[in-house]
Amino acid sequence: MSRVSVIGAGSWGCAFASLLAQNGVDTCLFVRKNEVLESLKRQRIHPHYLPGVKLSESIVFTGSIAEAMERADVVVMAVPVKYMRTVLHGLLNFVQNRHVFLSLSKGIENETFLRPTGIITDVLGVDESRTAALSGPNFALEVAKGLPTATVIASTNQRLAKALQRLVSCSNFRAYTSDDVIGVEVAGAMKNVIAIASGISDGLGLGYNAKASLITRGLAEISRLGLMFGARRDTFMGLAGIGDLVLTCTGDLSRNRRVGLVIAKEGRPEDFLGPSGMVAEGINTVRSAYEISLKKGIEMPITTEVYRIIYQKKDPQQAVFELMSRPLKSENL
Amino acid sequence: MSRVSVIGAGSWGCAFASLLAQNGVDTCLFVRKNEVLESLKRQRIHPHYLPGVKLSESIVFTGSIAEAMERADVVVMAVPVKYMRTVLHGLLNFVQNRHVFLSLSKGIENETFLRPTGIITDVLGVDESRTAALSGPNFALEVAKGLPTATVIASTNQRLAKALQRLVSCSNFRAYTSDDVIGVEVAGAMKNVIAIASGISDGLGLGYNAKASLITRGLAEISRLGLMFGARRDTFMGLAGIGDLVLTCTGDLSRNRRVGLVIAKEGRPEDFLGPSGMVAEGINTVRSAYEISLKKGIEMPITTEVYRIIYQKKDPQQAVFELMSRPLKSENL
Repeated sequence: MSRVSVIGAGSWGCAFASLLAQNGVDTCLFVRKNEVLESLKRQRIHPHYLPGVKLSESIVFTGSIAEAMERADVVVMAVPVKYMRTVLHGLLNFVQNRHVFLSLSKGIENETFLRPTGIITDVLGVDESRTAALSGPNFALEVAKGLPTATVIASTNQRLAKALQRLVSCSNFRAYTSDDVIGVEVAGAMKNVIAIASGISDGLGLGYNAKASLITRGLAEISRLGLMFGARRDTFMGLAGIGDLVLTCTGDLSRNRRVGLVIAKEGRPEDFLGPSGMVAEGINTVRSAYEISLKKGIEMPITTEVYRIIYQKKDPQQAVFELMSRPLKSENL
Repeated sequence: MSRVSVIGAGSWGCAFASLLAQNGVDTCLFVRKNEVLESLKRQRIHPHYLPGVKLSESIVFTGSIAEAMERADVVVMAVPVKYMRTVLHGLLNFVQNRHVFLSLSKGIENETFLRPTGIITDVLGVDESRTAALSGPNFALEVAKGLPTATVIASTNQRLAKALQRLVSCSNFRAYTSDDVIGVEVAGAMKNVIAIASGISDGLGLGYNAKASLITRGLAEISRLGLMFGARRDTFMGLAGIGDLVLTCTGDLSRNRRVGLVIAKEGRPEDFLGPSGMVAEGINTVRSAYEISLKKGIEMPITTEVYRIIYQKKDPQQAVFELMSRPLKSENL
C-alpha cells in the first residue's frame, strides 16, 4: 500500500500530495481544471493557491480519473463536500478491491446529513473498513512550506489507520491514529461554523475575550452534536477537535473566519466564494447542522445564530447580543 | 454580602474593581504603592496599566489594609501568587467571621505546591467553604473597556458561588458557577506555562498549525495534572480551561506569551519582569508544575521543556525539536 492518488487540486489536495511525494510515496494528483493542470505540469506551481510554493518534483499530475485510479492503492478525497458525491460517481467504474479511501474533506452533506466517509461508502458501495478520515490543525500553506504540525487519522479499521499513519508521517507532520471516525469528522465539519462566528465577533470588534468564550462554548455544542452521533468526548479535546477549532478561529489563513469578518463588516453575506472559487465549507455545513439540531432537539445556540445570519439575514450585532444574554447557569457541556 | 474590597491594584485588580463598582457594588480597592494610590485618587487612572481606561467613579481607594477589611464582606485577592502569602499575613489581624474570600490569582506556590485558595485557608485558617476562585478568558484591559466575556466562579460552597455570580455578572461579564475549585485553579495556573511555550513557538516562526498542536497537547497535560489533584475533566473543556488557554496562547495581550517570544528571539530568559514589574506568573508556576510532575510521575513534556529552557538554559530550538519528534502513537489524553 504505497501508491497514492489525491483527487482534487485545491490548496489542501496540492499540499498533501506534495507532503506524500516528499515522504518518498509514489504520488499522483488528479486535477480537474485544464488550466490548473497545465500550470502544475509546466512549473509545479498552482496558479491560484499556495503562493510561493513549488510542489514536489516527483508528483505525477493527471487530468484522467482512470489514470489516477489505476496508479493508486490509496485514493485520497480532497474535494469540497458539496461536490464529493458527483466526483465519486466519476470514480465508480474504476474502483478495484485493492483501493482504500482517505477523506480530507470537512463538512456534513446537505439533505443526507452524511459525513465524508459516509458519502464514500454510500456512492461507491465499499465497506467502511476501507475508509479513513484525516483531520487536524493543518493549514495547507504551512504544511506545504514544511512547517511542523500534527494530525489525526481515524478509521474503524485500525490496521488501515496505522498503515496510513506510516505513509503520511514525517518529522514535520505527525499523525496520531484514532478509531473515532464520527468524532473526527463532526469536529472537522463543525469547526468551520464556529470559525464563521469567530470572524463575526472579530469583525464587530468584540475582542479576544469574547472570541475565546465563543470558541469554548462552540466546542461544547460541537461535542453535543458529536455525542448524539455516537462520537467519543475525548476526540473533541484532541487535535481534530480543539486543535483544529483553535486554528480555524484564530489563524489568519482561515477562509471561514474571513467569511465571518466580511459578514460583520459589510453586512451582506451574499458572495461566499473567495477569490478563485475557494469554498468556505461552513456555509453549507451550518445548514445541515442547524437542521439536525432542530430534528434531534440538540441545543446549538451559536450554530443557530450563524444559520439565521446567513440564511435569514438576521443582523449580526443582534445575534451576538442574544448569544451573550442567555440566562446564567452553571457551566456544563 | 454586597460590600467588596479588592486587594491588589494590578491590571486585573483594577479592572475587576471597576466592573463591580459599575454593577452598583460598594467597592474598595487596596493599593500598596503610594505613587499608584495618589494617581488613582487624583484621576482614577493607573499610572502603568490599563492605558486609556478611567476606573469607575464610585471606587473607594485606600492604602490601609485595616480600612479595606473593615469595609468588606467579600475580600478579593488579586495579587501574584508569589506575594500572596505575605499579603495574607498582613490581613490576618483583621479577618472577621463575615468575610469570604474570592481569589483572582493564577499559579501554584513554589515549595508548598498550594493553589491560591489553599494559600488563603493555610494562612488565614478559614474553612474552604469561605473561599472561591474566579478564572476564565478575561484580559483585564478588555474587561475594563466593557467588552463582553464570560468566566467561571468555583467554590466547594455552591451558595457562595451563586452569591458571587450575582455580584459580578452583568450583560458584558457572564459568570458561570462550578464546584470544581481544583480544576479551575489548576487550569488557570497552567495555561501560563503553555502560553510561554506558545510564545516560544511563535518566536521561532513555527506557524499557526504548530501553535494549535501545542495548545491541544498542552491541554492534555494540564488535564493530566488536574485529574491527579482530583479535578473533573469537564472543567478543562470549559471557560477556565480551554477558554483561558486559547486566550492566553493566541491573544496579543498576554504577558506569559510575550515572555516566550522574548526567549525565542533573544535567547536570554534573564529579565522576566515586564515594564513596571508586571509579573509573568508562568515563570514560577512552571517550577512547581515540573517538580510535581517528577514527584508524581505525570507525563508533562511541554512543561518539562519550558522548565529546562528557563531554569537550565536549554536551547529553545532543540527543545521544540524534541517535543515534535516524540514517538508516534494513538491520540489519547
